Amino acid sequence: MNRLKEFEPIFYPRSMAVIGASATASLKFGSLFLASLKGFGFKGKIYPVHPKAGEILELKAYANVKDIPVDVDFASISVPAEVVPSVLEDCVEKGVKAVEIFTAGFSETGEEKKAGLENKISAIAKESGIKVIGPNCFGVYCPASGLTLLPGYDFPKESGPVAFIGQSGGYAVNFCAEGKGLGIRFSKVVSYGNACDLNEVDFLEYLAEDPETEIVAAYIEGVKDGRGFFQALKDITREKPVIIWKVGFSEAGSRAVSSHTSSLAGEESIWDAVFNQSGAVRVNSMEELIDTTIAFLHLPKNIGKGISVVGGGGGIGAAGADIYEKAGFSLPTFKPETQNKLRKMYQPAGTGIRNPLDTGAPFPPSKESLEAIAEDPAIDILVLYQFIHFLASGGSPEAVEDTIAMQAGIKQTYGKPIIAVLRPTPTDVEMLETEQLWRKAKDLYLKAGIPVYLTLERSAKALFNLRKYQRYLNETKTKI
Amino acid sequence: MNRLKEFEPIFYPRSMAVIGASATASLKFGSLFLASLKGFGFKGKIYPVHPKAGEILELKAYANVKDIPVDVDFASISVPAEVVPSVLEDCVEKGVKAVEIFTAGFSETGEEKKAGLENKISAIAKESGIKVIGPNCFGVYCPASGLTLLPGYDFPKESGPVAFIGQSGGYAVNFCAEGKGLGIRFSKVVSYGNACDLNEVDFLEYLAEDPETEIVAAYIEGVKDGRGFFQALKDITREKPVIIWKVGFSEAGSRAVSSHTSSLAGEESIWDAVFNQSGAVRVNSMEELIDTTIAFLHLPKNIGKGISVVGGGGGIGAAGADIYEKAGFSLPTFKPETQNKLRKMYQPAGTGIRNPLDTGAPFPPSKESLEAIAEDPAIDILVLYQFIHFLASGGSPEAVEDTIAMQAGIKQTYGKPIIAVLRPTPTDVEMLETEQLWRKAKDLYLKAGIPVYLTLERSAKALFNLRKYQRYLNETKTKI
Repeated sequence: MNRLKEFEPIFYPRSMAVIGASATASLKFGSLFLASLKGFGFKGKIYPVHPKAGEILELKAYANVKDIPVDVDFASISVPAEVVPSVLEDCVEKGVKAVEIFTAGFSETGEEKKAGLENKISAIAKESGIKVIGPNCFGVYCPASGLTLLPGYDFPKESGPVAFIGQSGGYAVNFCAEGKGLGIRFSKVVSYGNACDLNEVDFLEYLAEDPETEIVAAYIEGVKDGRGFFQALKDITREKPVIIWKVGFSEAGSRAVSSHTSSLAGEESIWDAVFNQSGAVRVNSMEELIDTTIAFLHLPKNIGKGISVVGGGGGIGAAGADIYEKAGFSLPTFKPETQNKLRKMYQPAGTGIRNPLDTGAPFPPSKESLEAIAEDPAIDILVLYQFIHFLASGGSPEAVEDTIAMQAGIKQTYGKPIIAVLRPTPTDVEMLETEQLWRKAKDLYLKAGIPVYLTLERSAKALFNLRKYQRYLNETKTKI
Repeated sequence: MNRLKEFEPIFYPRSMAVIGASATASLKFGSLFLASLKGFGFKGKIYPVHPKAGEILELKAYANVKDIPVDVDFASISVPAEVVPSVLEDCVEKGVKAVEIFTAGFSETGEEKKAGLENKISAIAKESGIKVIGPNCFGVYCPASGLTLLPGYDFPKESGPVAFIGQSGGYAVNFCAEGKGLGIRFSKVVSYGNACDLNEVDFLEYLAEDPETEIVAAYIEGVKDGRGFFQALKDITREKPVIIWKVGFSEAGSRAVSSHTSSLAGEESIWDAVFNQSGAVRVNSMEELIDTTIAFLHLPKNIGKGISVVGGGGGIGAAGADIYEKAGFSLPTFKPETQNKLRKMYQPAGTGIRNPLDTGAPFPPSKESLEAIAEDPAIDILVLYQFIHFLASGGSPEAVEDTIAMQAGIKQTYGKPIIAVLRPTPTDVEMLETEQLWRKAKDLYLKAGIPVYLTLERSAKALFNLRKYQRYLNETKTKI
């Protein structure tokens, strides 16, 4: 099946109807979405649809989608639940190829009558072939065509290699808003809510083929078709990593996913097997989802397990060693030659030169010391633990730039990844300048292909996840 | 043993010699410390000691501690390792009661000669009765007497109920700097490095008696006297919680703690038993240490296990339910009366009203909805998941104040703790205003006795730790 062709009207619509946009600016979904879409800069034509017609946000509005005089590829629907089926039938008649239904209040309510409405939508989709995303969702974000989520006017306009699919609209927005600041750029993002027609299997199959997408992040509450999902996962992970945050394992969590998107959460043991056998990477929070995505974005395909933790303070090294060894990495003792070089640079006063390297003071390690470590054949990855206010003497932005450029040079010269753990700044209201400097440094690191994490723990988890996927790939290849 | 009397010269010295302070401003420890101490506002007399005497930072300096014409309670020593023993002997002759030795380069180097120097220090202390903190440490911070760590001129000047002891100077500074922004105020903080004389047992015994201290946080690499430590822990936890971050369990971690403070890290299984049987609370990172301290600071002595997670988005509730149930809490289904009240407020469109409460939109929950939940007898604690940019319409600081005041009122009226999960702001450089607003809101929450956490995971860990200690206390009391 050619999913690319099939999903073209969804991700690259040339024209779009916004059904349920109202002329009075309000907090209603239709109006919010229309403003979002216009503000973000949708590249196709937009046709608002509202019973009163007239003009909305300087666009000519139509009383019914069928009144639009040209072809419509895609439509968003934000009308009361009761009338969604008839609006969808209008769309079918008009020849609309696909819709995203923002309206909620269907099977997730647990009420029979409302579940019946959702069944009607499914039936119309099945019969007519119109594709439906939702209901109870925030829709699609695709920077290449200027399409954005229900609330998403300020998302990045440039495309990138990361896709996200998830049942929660809120988490889709979170992933984009937080990921944006951390340099993540997106190919396609889909919030698909109750998944009454298109579901995770369809999207995974599409993303497997999509040339724009290299990494898939997902938030899953439950799946409709377990076997199909497992197979789709297995297929896509051969080429592209899929990182999944799955929730709904607890009693209350399972109750919540049922209220939220009418999903069956499933047993944790079954999901464990799915993760292990499909090569999908399991994470347990939004933070870990983003952290892991950044690791996949910046680190090479096969990272080694020899880590060196470098920091100004013995406690950092001791904690770092524990954390990285627990994550399956090793901190090999530096070979004698490396130790000899380091001994000359760091007086052995409260410092450690065997790995971890404790530089004794919180200032950044010298170029020479990083060279010595990078030259050590047992070391595959350098983890630098740093504080922004010590990254440069006096905290001057220029000195920060120089330090990061030096570290990026080491990475380049020796071809060994560097991980920056750049500790959070104190949260005093009057210390915003430090925070600003932190953010600038973070941008410089990411631009240099050096992933940035707030803590050693978070960096170790992300690297563990990356390596787990790489091991899966290697084992799978061996079997073939 | 009356530790209070014994430690008076350490925490409340009336006069202090700074041995190794140099007249030329430099990065040397002695000069840095003198500047720190003066800048922080030490309330006693300060006497710099340096071979060249003269005047240092507008203070009359002496060539030898013995030349100081008045009594000296406490001295800091930052001279080369080789001369530390003779300087210590001078202190003994002078009648100095206690010293903190910043100088490093002793047993932690692994060199026999340098370990010998440390043994000399121990022997002098034992023989003469002079108390020694360190060597290889950052010393003591006690706001009540204006004493501060080696680098610590900008720590809070007002006292508070939290003590910290730790072998790492860097982590002592971290805990104070990060804790300060989160409203933690300190009674006594001690970085004690190699612990060649006073060690964790002495400090725990002191803090048990100290009327200023209500909560003890600790970073431990290893202990000198396992049995003494266990007993001291068991004694103090009867009255005051002790939260410990212990490192050095991995091979490289154990190597690192040996390089750092010459400690024997010990087996993890032994430490597990120590934690379980002594009532000490085990944490695994600086973040968790601070998060847990904040829970102890703001939450009542016996919290229940019935949690309600409230947020704008079904995913939040689903994830929150998983996270809190894994942490040993329960999310009881709201009783029918509560559900009926909530149903009227939230149309059942994509929302959940059974617990978690999904308000359907990211705006803060209404006063009426919080009242309905707080009235439900099954609910002991309300966890509110929020985004700063939605805390108030338009993000105005006044609206944020009103929202938090309303939530604080609910806490007050119903006597049920509220936990604020206030999500991190996106880290775009140009979005500092959002960060500023976040920090102001964080201060308002803490002022109202509402702990603030960045993620649901971190809040759940902190509450788990708090409850674990409370259960320990209850079980211990039952046995007696």
